[in-house]
Order: sequence, then structure tokens, then C-alpha cells
Amino acid sequence: MLFRHSTEMATQQNQNMRGGKGTVTVKHVLNPNELFGNGRLFAQLTVPPGASVGLHKHEGEAETYLVLQGQGRYHNNDESYDIAAGDMARVDDGDSHGIENTGDTPLVLIGLILFSHSKAN
Amino acid sequence: MLFRHSTEMATQQNQNMRGGKGTVTVKHVLNPNELFGNGRLFAQLTVPPGASVGLHKHEGEAETYLVLQGQGRYHNNDESYDIAAGDMARVDDGDSHGIENTGDTPLVLIGLILFSHSKAN
Repeated sequence: MLFRHSTEMATQQNQNMRGGKGTVTVKHVLNPNELFGNGRLFAQLTVPPGASVGLHKHEGEAETYLVLQGQGRYHNNDESYDIAAGDMARVDDGDSHGIENTGDTPLVLIGLILFSHSKAN
Repeated sequence: MLFRHSTEMATQQNQNMRGGKGTVTVKHVLNPNELFGNGRLFAQLTVPPGASVGLHKHEGEAETYLVLQGQGRYHNNDESYDIAAGDMARVDDGDSHGIENTGDTPLVLIGLILFSHSKAN
């Protein structure tokens, strides 16, 4: 089994993540090598007020954001949507997405990147 | 893209889940057919005070719990651990796990089941 307290998870401070603003904290719930080849990210992201993850493209994979706390604006290609705690948004393979914190509290979300072409096919 | 508000996610009320106590709510962030064959569950589970998910075995897959709120006791085979918001625990392929809410507030967690044998191998 694996068991980790929050403080034991690998954590990165990403400045201007994907061309976004401010510093986004990425805390890895599972490390990429613990995903059995199914994907490459299962992490909690914290986006401070005013900060963002810039628009970026996913190829061969799809990323799901699940918002745990706060509110923001989610961008998918040239569209955007208000997003808040409890909402999920998944970008499709080949499309681009990003997210910005438009509130005055931290925007906390789960990011899950799974490979979009099942190795079973 | 996929975008869903919390109220639009498929939700189940599971009585005596896996032989546990009380009723556990399972809200599917992604439905099983949206996981591209990489796994079979990405959901938020809510375990009320006094309730539990009974000890159950995983085969051909591994499940990670990430605790979002509350506190409880995590069981893995014949061992058990206190678990609280921010902690993660993953059961290995072939092992058994369960979780009980030992606090007086809801125990809320993410459950992610990925297949343990990468289809790439």
C-alpha cells in the first residue's frame, strides 16, 4: 500500500505555469510512475487569487479539473466558462485549456491526466 | 470538452457499501466510460459520521483515496491507520481496504480506481 500525509507529497511551485500569472502550487497525490501507465498526473493544484494556468494544448491525453474550493474562469480553446467548487471540466485530446482564479480566495482543484488512447485498443 | 456542475454528476446512495455501515454517497466526476479504458472510477465519496465502506478486495486494479474533509480510520488488509483531510492511501492489486468515519463531520474523499496492469505492457 501507499500512504502519505499531505506534507509528504511531492510539491512544486510553478511560476507562470503554462504562460499564466503568479505561482501555482502542484502537489502530487500520486507520482507519475505510480499511475501504471494510465496517465501522467493526479495532483492537487492551488491557484492564488489573480493567478492562472495559461492556455495549453493536450495531445494523446485528456485532463480533468475538479474544483474543490474557490471560483474561476475556465478556458477551452476559444470558449470560456465560469467554474466553481463542485464543478468539473475535461479538455479533450488535441484541444487546449487553462484556468484563472477570479475570486478572492484560493482556487483549489484536482488535475487528473489520463492517456486518451486506451492501451487496450 | 466535458463540463458538469456538481448537481449534474451521476450520484448513487449506497446502503451498507461493501458490507459497511450507513449510507455512502458516490458522485461520479467522470463516468466509467469516460476513463478511456484506464480505470473504472473517479468519484467523490461522502461517508457520514458513523458510516463506513466495508473491507473489500481489489483485483487487477488499485484504488487511491484522497481525503478532502473530515477524519477516519483506514483499513488495509489487517492493518489500520488514522486518516484525515489531505492524506492519501492506495490499496495495491490483490489487497483489501475499507474506511470508516470516526469523526463528527462528513468524511469526504476522492476515489480513483486505475487498472494496475498497464495495457502498454
